Amino acid sequence: MIVVMSPNSSSAQVEQVVQALRDMRTSSRVIQAAGRSVIELLEVGPGFDRARLTALPMVDQVLERPAPVLSVGRQPDQETHEIPLGPRAVVGGKGLAVIAGPCSIECESRLLEIAAAVAEAGAVALRGGAFKPRSSPYTFQGHEERGLEMLAQAREKTGLAIVTEVMCPEHVSRVQPYADVLQVGSRNMHNTPLLTAVGRQPKPVLLKRGWSATLEEFLLAAEYVLLAGNPHVLLCERGIRAHEEYVRNTLALAIVPEIKRLSRLPIIVDPSHGTGRAHLVPPMCRAAVACGADGLLIEVHPEPDQAWSDGPQTLDLEQFRRLMADLKPLAQVCGRAL
Amino acid sequence: MIVVMSPNSSSAQVEQVVQALRDMRTSSRVIQAAGRSVIELLEVGPGFDRARLTALPMVDQVLERPAPVLSVGRQPDQETHEIPLGPRAVVGGKGLAVIAGPCSIECESRLLEIAAAVAEAGAVALRGGAFKPRSSPYTFQGHEERGLEMLAQAREKTGLAIVTEVMCPEHVSRVQPYADVLQVGSRNMHNTPLLTAVGRQPKPVLLKRGWSATLEEFLLAAEYVLLAGNPHVLLCERGIRAHEEYVRNTLALAIVPEIKRLSRLPIIVDPSHGTGRAHLVPPMCRAAVACGADGLLIEVHPEPDQAWSDGPQTLDLEQFRRLMADLKPLAQVCGRAL
Amino acid sequence: MIVVMSPNSSSAQVEQVVQALRDMRTSSRVIQAAGRSVIELLEVGPGFDRARLTALPMVDQVLERPAPVLSVGRQPDQETHEIPLGPRAVVGGKGLAVIAGPCSIECESRLLEIAAAVAEAGAVALRGGAFKPRSSPYTFQGHEERGLEMLAQAREKTGLAIVTEVMCPEHVSRVQPYADVLQVGSRNMHNTPLLTAVGRQPKPVLLKRGWSATLEEFLLAAEYVLLAGNPHVLLCERGIRAHEEYVRNTLALAIVPEIKRLSRLPIIVDPSHGTGRAHLVPPMCRAAVACGADGLLIEVHPEPDQAWSDGPQTLDLEQFRRLMADLKPLAQVCGRAL
Amino acid sequence: MIVVMSPNSSSAQVEQVVQALRDMRTSSRVIQAAGRSVIELLEVGPGFDRARLTALPMVDQVLERPAPVLSVGRQPDQETHEIPLGPRAVVGGKGLAVIAGPCSIECESRLLEIAAAVAEAGAVALRGGAFKPRSSPYTFQGHEERGLEMLAQAREKTGLAIVTEVMCPEHVSRVQPYADVLQVGSRNMHNTPLLTAVGRQPKPVLLKRGWSATLEEFLLAAEYVLLAGNPHVLLCERGIRAHEEYVRNTLALAIVPEIKRLSRLPIIVDPSHGTGRAHLVPPMCRAAVACGADGLLIEVHPEPDQAWSDGPQTLDLEQFRRLMADLKPLAQVCGRAL
Repeated sequence: MIVVMSPNSSSAQVEQVVQALRDMRTSSRVIQAAGRSVIELLEVGPGFDRARLTALPMVDQVLERPAPVLSVGRQPDQETHEIPLGPRAVVGGKGLAVIAGPCSIECESRLLEIAAAVAEAGAVALRGGAFKPRSSPYTFQGHEERGLEMLAQAREKTGLAIVTEVMCPEHVSRVQPYADVLQVGSRNMHNTPLLTAVGRQPKPVLLKRGWSATLEEFLLAAEYVLLAGNPHVLLCERGIRAHEEYVRNTLALAIVPEIKRLSRLPIIVDPSHGTGRAHLVPPMCRAAVACGADGLLIEVHPEPDQAWSDGPQTLDLEQFRRLMADLKPLAQVCGRAL
Repeated sequence: MIVVMSPNSSSAQVEQVVQALRDMRTSSRVIQAAGRSVIELLEVGPGFDRARLTALPMVDQVLERPAPVLSVGRQPDQETHEIPLGPRAVVGGKGLAVIAGPCSIECESRLLEIAAAVAEAGAVALRGGAFKPRSSPYTFQGHEERGLEMLAQAREKTGLAIVTEVMCPEHVSRVQPYADVLQVGSRNMHNTPLLTAVGRQPKPVLLKRGWSATLEEFLLAAEYVLLAGNPHVLLCERGIRAHEEYVRNTLALAIVPEIKRLSRLPIIVDPSHGTGRAHLVPPMCRAAVACGADGLLIEVHPEPDQAWSDGPQTLDLEQFRRLMADLKPLAQVCGRAL
Repeated sequence: MIVVMSPNSSSAQVEQVVQALRDMRTSSRVIQAAGRSVIELLEVGPGFDRARLTALPMVDQVLERPAPVLSVGRQPDQETHEIPLGPRAVVGGKGLAVIAGPCSIECESRLLEIAAAVAEAGAVALRGGAFKPRSSPYTFQGHEERGLEMLAQAREKTGLAIVTEVMCPEHVSRVQPYADVLQVGSRNMHNTPLLTAVGRQPKPVLLKRGWSATLEEFLLAAEYVLLAGNPHVLLCERGIRAHEEYVRNTLALAIVPEIKRLSRLPIIVDPSHGTGRAHLVPPMCRAAVACGADGLLIEVHPEPDQAWSDGPQTLDLEQFRRLMADLKPLAQVCGRAL
Repeated sequence: MIVVMSPNSSSAQVEQVVQALRDMRTSSRVIQAAGRSVIELLEVGPGFDRARLTALPMVDQVLERPAPVLSVGRQPDQETHEIPLGPRAVVGGKGLAVIAGPCSIECESRLLEIAAAVAEAGAVALRGGAFKPRSSPYTFQGHEERGLEMLAQAREKTGLAIVTEVMCPEHVSRVQPYADVLQVGSRNMHNTPLLTAVGRQPKPVLLKRGWSATLEEFLLAAEYVLLAGNPHVLLCERGIRAHEEYVRNTLALAIVPEIKRLSRLPIIVDPSHGTGRAHLVPPMCRAAVACGADGLLIEVHPEPDQAWSDGPQTLDLEQFRRLMADLKPLAQVCGRAL
């Protein structure tokens, strides 16, 4: 059970509630969330009296189940929160933000080739993995610092913002100086120490939905980041694990309008992981834009069948260019600039 | 294992293969599919010799696994098969076909009110259940013949084509005289006697994907109808059962472009069942159109919260009108007329 | 909404409730279930008054959601319902009932060989498909009447009860004279006309859970059969469709004790379909017995790799004999005779 | 692609393969696994010649897909690997190892009460969370070091081994001095930095399957730990996320015999999380034992409805005692001591 205090309650008033709980033999702890104090009840004692609690001054709500939307929730008429993607671009505003790049960073010349091509086609950020979470320990795990340096070079040459992944709290300080956006991948959506660590630094966070996470768990993961102090969380739908066999994952696009309704955080869609098949990426990009996504995350590589990872879901440079041209009139009719 | 004969093989040539199989102590049966003879091997005997079989005249392919696409498959450069929706409309062509109406038929005046409204807003067909498959025997099972007569009246007044469900072979002859399109629902996608029964009559069939059917099973269900003689199968994606909790079903839109690639049958999308939430129906209609759906199936009722079934996923008349207006520019930019 | 009348309410008292509803402008229909009258409310009018309804004589409950357990539910201290398997055996009592046989009936000599072997090893019933529901129209669909005659011969020679499948209402009268138990397969669990058809004849029904059916839907499907007049429904868990890739289905055994708690119908387990892998059948038979299953359904064939269907999940005769010997002490320690 | 060298290949022979790859313009890296050298191919160059590679001295296999079972796999006739649970017990041998305790550690007196009770009933290890991964940031996250000290006290008083969770690499050195077994929870099964961190210290690891992990991903996660140097990984099935609604998770027991077939690591079952319902825990414990589990992980609390977390799936002390008594004869007939 949690007690949500009114926004402008004083610390004395919070203390009054804590004392009242103590009198009811109920232990508690105080958390700051979305500019309010929230009091979580731990051990509820025999003398607990909910009505008395609710009647105390400045108590706003007493909730049986945790309220996921204190920080990430949308108030009526609130706009989507705009998040900077490096110094030149944002996501969450009128523009459709396209983030593109290879799954893994392979070598410098190839990364620069991709960066130049996606920038020219209209992408605003470059994705690329320097630390790679892989199911098998016998597969390439990323170039680490060397990969980060290549990303920094690509930014310098193209002006693209850099999006790259962190996999544990210890990575955060290593990656942060090189990146414009820190990515928390699907495998780590439930990794609360990592969520707290990226929440304690100022760079925006791209948070991918876990492949079997519920909507509530997804929003609560974002809430961890905001509670730790970082307001800039960009959500990303990337497909769930279902029974379908012709795709790698099932892209569950209804989450886009539902997130828009419940949360003021922007949401983008990754049809590369969301289908696992390059030929399905363009139509699913179109569907994502049409139902309100704030942006797209797309895997691009000059020679997909030579890529060190994720080849079957990767567009080549020409396919990416054609996709961007194809999306332009669609974005416009959806009220978006691209 | 099946042997697919070349399209213009003679019956003598087919008999030659059957005899060769008999010589190999292998029993078989002959099926006609997509203008060809297909020979299914039953008991494979010890003398079986695949190479010898493959070398016989007019043998096109010997396939280990059944080939789902003999009848429903798409040949290179083949157009989508156009299916009549009553005398005035088609689905599968340039137009976007919208089928709308209540989940259950309740009473005549209400049905006519809905029919007039959806026709005016641009729908080409009216859906409504006279025979309802329901999970509980304690819920309304449909008005049966009386419902069919109301549908026929609605057609007369509005010109809309009538789409209504059949649940067993015995229903087919009762429903067929009233309907323009016979619907096979998700619960019956695997009901092969029903698939054969609707395949033996001439009215088009709207086949909804089973909620945990694979793509292959979906196409094979359509193949049953075509093999029985009816070429007019309209496929419909209506959401799958996954772990998501904020929707009734998970609408899996990637199947739309994948069906377009594999099959020449048209495919429409039902976002009403596909989400179970009225507020998610308009954005998912938009997404369906953007990724290439040939049409939409939408539940509409003047007072959704009074509907006898499916209220939470049903649009009211005004919401439907606004949706149709909103879809028009989107359809146009997608190369579709509405 | 439904009104459940007390067990010994008179028809005049039922009529009084229907009249009261009419006065409230609410239409309804009366159903007989589990020896009671149940009144389903169709169109709820503006004058509806729930409190008044509840206060009428002999009204037992007014339920918002359908009550699945009127007929199939378990009253406190009620025993499991015993169902005859032919003239000599039962399922649902102290004995563990093993039903074994091939997936498809292939030829007479093979069927008799299997029947003799499974009878000798301790099975009480023979399963075998004469009408086969198959995903592909290009695979063997069963010997139909000829298969039924072979089953009748096997019964005569071995005394085993015969369990065989029906796929549509029209099959029921064709299969019923030959069978001791009519099977409704997973693909047809939601086929309500078929459920009603098997409910209108006296032979017991083996009802397999649909592969993505919920527990509630499963019990409601059984309720359809009981409402139609047949009290003998034997439930069968056969695995659900989940993300697991090393099995054909995920055997969800927790449903066994949950069914025992909620329903007085017996439940058996089919580990052949429930895993799809012969080497997993024996350990899953053991698990099923240990958690309280009333019986087992097992696919057996002299040469599994020659079987016309389901070979990879089929035990050979020797494996079946060893399994039965292995289950004996386990059944005993679980308070079951085998 | 990976090249697996024969077990007794010399470093010169490994270098010869690496040089041959270089000559084929193919980059690679060398990994030590299961006492062998494994060479992973990164960028495969135009001169690559698989036949030449396979023919080199001491090359054992060239595998297209990663081989998950190099370290965790079972050789023919190999016994299950026995893992110490503190100084007095093991898991993986003839005994059935029961690990029991509360979800969260609440206070010292309660923990000692539970520990004494489960030890007396026959448990060999105490579970209890000091660091708790929780979906919501507004729920209790564990007593951290203070909880670890309580666990150490409980060990001193009862002799039980201590099993407790770590959530990030930084936790490992904090928890390791207090614990006998480090638990990696379901949410972290894909957390490769954590898997490597627990692999670099000597205490055994209890690895729970991710709730939508495949069998292959589960074994590969264990492979990460073994590759880092720690051979003691105890696997745990705890239910998967499926469509079932009457349980918190679907306990997928077929994985027990499949793991036994593929791997020499022991496997236990957690029916508390695996069902989420206390009344289903005893029958599922029975099923787990009957299909070959090496042990059980059970949540126990004196007053489950007062527990700070997981109350609905927790047994009280008396229920736990009765379960242990009930399991004894079953374990015996399964060839296990309890």
